[in-house]
Order: sequence, then structure tokens, then C-alpha cells
Amino acid sequence: MATLGLIEYADAGPEVRAVYDDIRATRDTDYINNFWKAIAHHPPTLRRTWESIKQIMAPGALDPVTKEMLYLAVSASNQCGYCIASHTAAARKAGMTDSMFAELMAVVGMANETNRLASGYQVEIDDRFLTR
Amino acid sequence: MATLGLIEYADAGPEVRAVYDDIRATRDTDYINNFWKAIAHHPPTLRRTWESIKQIMAPGALDPVTKEMLYLAVSASNQCGYCIASHTAAARKAGMTDSMFAELMAVVGMANETNRLASGYQVEIDDRFLTR
Amino acid sequence: MATLGLIEYADAGPEVRAVYDDIRATRDTDYINNFWKAIAHHPPTLRRTWESIKQIMAPGALDPVTKEMLYLAVSASNQCGYCIASHTAAARKAGMTDSMFAELMAVVGMANETNRLASGYQVEIDDRFLTR
Amino acid sequence: MATLGLIEYADAGPEVRAVYDDIRATRDTDYINNFWKAIAHHPPTLRRTWESIKQIMAPGALDPVTKEMLYLAVSASNQCGYCIASHTAAARKAGMTDSMFAELMAVVGMANETNRLASGYQVEIDDRFLTR
Amino acid sequence: MATLGLIEYADAGPEVRAVYDDIRATRDTDYINNFWKAIAHHPPTLRRTWESIKQIMAPGALDPVTKEMLYLAVSASNQCGYCIASHTAAARKAGMTDSMFAELMAVVGMANETNRLASGYQVEIDDRFLTR
Amino acid sequence: MATLGLIEYADAGPEVRAVYDDIRATRDTDYINNFWKAIAHHPPTLRRTWESIKQIMAPGALDPVTKEMLYLAVSASNQCGYCIASHTAAARKAGMTDSMFAELMAVVGMANETNRLASGYQVEIDDRFLTR
Repeated sequence: MATLGLIEYADAGPEVRAVYDDIRATRDTDYINNFWKAIAHHPPTLRRTWESIKQIMAPGALDPVTKEMLYLAVSASNQCGYCIASHTAAARKAGMTDSMFAELMAVVGMANETNRLASGYQVEIDDRFLTR
Repeated sequence: MATLGLIEYADAGPEVRAVYDDIRATRDTDYINNFWKAIAHHPPTLRRTWESIKQIMAPGALDPVTKEMLYLAVSASNQCGYCIASHTAAARKAGMTDSMFAELMAVVGMANETNRLASGYQVEIDDRFLTR
Repeated sequence: MATLGLIEYADAGPEVRAVYDDIRATRDTDYINNFWKAIAHHPPTLRRTWESIKQIMAPGALDPVTKEMLYLAVSASNQCGYCIASHTAAARKAGMTDSMFAELMAVVGMANETNRLASGYQVEIDDRFLTR
Repeated sequence: MATLGLIEYADAGPEVRAVYDDIRATRDTDYINNFWKAIAHHPPTLRRTWESIKQIMAPGALDPVTKEMLYLAVSASNQCGYCIASHTAAARKAGMTDSMFAELMAVVGMANETNRLASGYQVEIDDRFLTR
Repeated sequence: MATLGLIEYADAGPEVRAVYDDIRATRDTDYINNFWKAIAHHPPTLRRTWESIKQIMAPGALDPVTKEMLYLAVSASNQCGYCIASHTAAARKAGMTDSMFAELMAVVGMANETNRLASGYQVEIDDRFLTR
Repeated sequence: MATLGLIEYADAGPEVRAVYDDIRATRDTDYINNFWKAIAHHPPTLRRTWESIKQIMAPGALDPVTKEMLYLAVSASNQCGYCIASHTAAARKAGMTDSMFAELMAVVGMANETNRLASGYQVEIDDRFLTR
């Protein structure tokens, strides 16, 4: 199921349970993904990863569905099977429709194509795009 | 400047000029990026790439600034120097603020981190995330 | 099982058997991974790959467990399912504990995150880090 | 120099200065890399990234030079120019010799080669390498 | 089977059927891959992707088997499981033998190795290789 | 110029000179690329890499220009600046014309696009493409 196995709530120590509880409260669900149960074997990684995601994915200058779509776009571009599956679900829960998914994937595909055209043709950065 | 050099408007044939004209009209600018001038050496690639981008980046279920941010997110994840520079400019023109950029980058960084944690820990996809 | 199938010892010619024998002797095991059985369809690839790995993974300025962990770190970063599975086993055999694995994965995740932050923010290399 | 420019200590607010001070104290140096000065435009990203790196790179089951070499291996595999330059310097400061660097790079190169052979030949994971 | 499911010919609207018909006629087969059935949920993506592939893969300065081998080489390098499987089949149909496949994979593996050696050793581009 | 500097023929020991001599004889040129001069700091890496490339790139079931184009395709897909520059030169020397380059790049771009569509849409491998 995972390199070190999955840690269920019933078998977890207090440090892991505290994170699981916070995931459940923050996401308003009883469900804990396999991802968290797998990294729970190393509590500092579990805590740090969860705290970082909680901070980054909270509403700010970007709304939650946009953030989830960016997460999915990167995961699709990196071809991470687990992350595509879980973040497609998360993005849908946040409001992504089938049409939005299809347009997202079109952009991801096109960006991957032109990234290679730009690099392969050895295109130099235009002066106006240079940072100061 | 590029593998095959850059083709300026003055030196371009009618097929290339037609695409340059359409880029200028669609984007409401006189400026043609080095990217287009580099791939113009192969007019079918120039035309197909431009027509694809024009279709994909047009407003639809997603608005233009979201599409540009997705494009930038993928380019940053792929570490394409040219594309990061040009799509940062494009996203800003479409309305991306410094705060939006910073939050976008935070998501891109985090997604790249958890993509590897999920793969490296060999996490199996949760039943509920499986597609039918 | 693999594009060209797997070649078992009993069905192998003398060139392939010689490599299998050397793998067994060098690794002090009777087991030959599917990886070797798959590339054995092309004996020059089998021999070159094995000779290269034997040379590279031998103890030198770095000890075997460090080399196996570096191999695993790259495989996890590249998200190669087969390689993560086989090199996790190899690293453990060389002495990697669960804690070492967890710390390794934390570094792999973080490096993947900051690699994209550095590229996405278009950070220029500090003068003091430039090579001469 | 960077998408949003670089923030020097003299121009930084108290939140950024606190992180810069901690970097200096932890690393026993006056020097702040361009990386930190670039992401300082978004103080939550600066703080979270620094706190994460400080925790992950601290001595634990793995010693500092091993961690720095893992960081460098991933950065070289991802071909991040900035990160290769800065983490080569960091790994050397932590004790990596020229021979250790060369052996590290040999492993990185080989892992990238066999990752593609395993995927390209569609090798199935051996039963004994499967996780429970 | 896929994020949005697969669309069979019998259930497809006229726009999708027209593309399926063209795929069948162009490839001289009755079979439609899962790939097309999956992206058929978004007819503009289906049409654009098919039209682009039809144009790019047509004989030109490069013959069909060379183009299919280039497609497979990139897919193997990117470690896309679906694409490796389908383009191995396509390349074979176009004339790739087992020996050609094995040599192709040897080049893909070696290129991935030296790409990282060149980047990791921070090798500067030779003057004679610079573009004008 | 490179992490450990470049080793010129005049400053090289006999082991390095022997490889340089063989590169010159095999390629019928006096020129040694920076790549070789950079990895020459670790003679076993220099020798192994050169012997591997010499074996892999020799004419076989695939001719030299096809092999060089595959090498370039992977390098462009991986976005390795040094490798794109040097292998564009090598492919041209082997007979790649501007039209062949442009068609190669079109395939590389398209493969990168559909690799992400296949992964992002979570398309399952067709039964007929499965390996036995």
C-alpha cells in the first residue's frame, strides 16, 4: 500500500492524531487520504507538510478553486498518478466543472509543448521580458 | 539568438506575415515575441502553434488571467527560462498582481514537493479517487 | 511483463548468462531483477549497463548506502515506479533505516520545491557561486 | 535579477529581517543568498521555506553532508541552474570533496539512465519489491 | 478508466464521430484508442489534437517510422506509461524492429545520463555551438 | 566554465589523453567539447561515458543521423541547454537539415503535449497495448 505502510487513526500516537484531527476539522470531512497515512510514519514530515499545505491553500489573493486547479495542473504536468487522482477530486469539491477541467488540461498540454519548442529552438529571452 | 535565427516582419513571406498580423490584432500590440520569430522558419509549426494557442487561451469556462497563471505554473514547474519570462509578462498584462504571483509560486513549489512524497512513499490511490 | 518479455536464465545464451552470473556473484544473491531480464533482449545494453552500475556503485569516496540513497533520491524525484521499488529494497539491504528513508524523502521533497521557487522567481546566480 | 527584485537587509521590514537574522545565526555567516532575497517579497513564503529547510537539513538520522549531497543530486537531476550552483557550494562547505562530487554525479547520471530503461522497457515491479 | 470516462462511437455526437471517422480512415483501422475516447469529452480538444497529430506525423522531411520513434523516445524519457505502450505499438506498426527499439532505448538512456552530467558539472556552451 | 574547471590536452594525464585521442580519431576532428574537458576531472567517468557513447552511437539497426536526432529530441524534451546546443551541431554534421530539425521539434512538442493529456485524463492502457 505504501513503503512503510499506512497508519490508521486507531493505531496512531498523539502527535499524529492531532494532525489527523486538524485535517478533518479544516476540510470538514472524516476522511484521511492515504497520502497522510503514509507519511505519518515520520511525524515531523506529516506535521510540516500539513501546516504548509494548510497555509498555502487557504484563501488569499487567489481563491480555493484556482489554487486547487494550479495544484492539479502541476501534478498533471509532472505525471504523478496519485496526485492527479486526489487533486482532481479536491478541485471538483472546490467547484471545478468538467469544462473547467478540460480547459485546464488544454493549457497544461499546450504549455508543455511550447516549453519544449522554446528550449529546443534555443530562443533568447526578449529584452522586454528580462527582470531588472 | 535562436537555432535558425529570428525572422523579422520585413523579411517574412506572406504566410508568416499573415500569422504575425493575426497575433498583433488578437493581442492588440505591435510586438512579436522572439518565440514566434524563431519558429517562423517552419511556417506550418508557426501557424498550428498560433492557432492552437489562440483557441486554448480564449475566454471560456476559465477566464484569461486564470489560464495565463496555469500556463505560468506549468512553465515554472518545467523550469523553462524563456517561458517563465514571457508568461510572467503575459499573466501580469492579464491582471496577475505580485500577491497572486507569490501565491501561485507557493502552490507550484508545494505541488512539486508532495508529488515526490506521494511517489517516493509509493502511496496507492484511495478507492474513492479511482476513476470508473 | 515487459515490452520484449523477460529472459530467464534457462533460456539465456552464454553472453547473457555471463552477466547474470556476475550479478549473482557481485551481489551475493541468486535473484536476478526483472530489470535485467527485460534488457537482456539486447545483450550489449545488458552488459554495458551492468558494467557501468558495478563500477559506479562500488565503494569509493562514497560508501554503498550513501550511493544507494542518492540513487533512490533521483528515482523518487523522477517518479519512476519500478526504480523506487527496487532501489528502496537495495538501499535497505545496504543499511538504510526507516528514519533515514524518511529524512531522505524530506530532502527530496524540499529540493523539488525550492528548485521551482528559484526558477519561477528567476533568481540570478550569486557571484560567489559562479564557477570560474 | 529576479521577477520581483531582491530585498536587501537595509530595505527589509521586521518580519523579513527576523528570518535573515536567523539564517545568519544558523549558518554562521553574514551572507544571505539571492534566493532568500527574491522570495522575501512574500514574507509567508520566506518564513515557511526557511523554517522547513532549517528543520529538514538539521542533523538527524542522516548527517549534514549526506543531506546536502541528496539536495544537490536532486537539483542536478532537475537541471536547476541556480540550485546546482548554490548547493554545490553548500555541500562543499559541509565537507563534500571533488571525488565525492564526481561519484555523486556518476550516480545521478546512471539513475537517470536506468529510470528511462525501466520505464521504456515497461518492466513490471518484481513481487518481492511490492509494498504490502 | 479515465477522469471523465470513455466515449464510444455509438454514444458520440456528430462532431466526435467525424473525428473518429477521420482517425479510422487515416490510420486504416477500425480501432480507436482509449486516448481519443477520453479527450472526446471536450470536442475542441479532440479535434485540435487530432488535426495537429495528423499534420505532424504525416511523411515529410522525416519518414513515418522515424517520427514514431522520436515520439516514443520522448514518451520513454517522460516516463508516460500510456504513451510508451501506445507509441511502442504505433512505431512497430510503422516498421520498428526489436533491434531498432533496443538501440532507440540505449540512446534515450544515454541522453538522460549526459543531460544531467552536463547540467550538474555546470558545463558552459562551447563558442562554436552558440547560435547567432 | 564548469564546477571543477576544464582540463586541456596539454594539462591532461595519460589516461585522459588516451580518451581525448580516441574522441579525435573516432570523430575525425581535433576539437574536444567542453563536456569532455569538464568530466575529465574524474577519469573513470570520462572513460566510461565515452566508451558508452561510442558503442551506442555507432551505426547499427539505426543510422547515425537517426541516433543523433533521437539524442537531440530527448535533450530538447529535458530542456538541457548545453546538450541542445551540442547535439544540434552533431545532428547537423550527421546530415540533419533545417526541415528535418523543424519536423523533429514538432514531434517533440506534440509528444510532450499528449503525454500530459494522457496522464492528466488518467487514460487506462488499452488491452491491446499491454505487454504479455
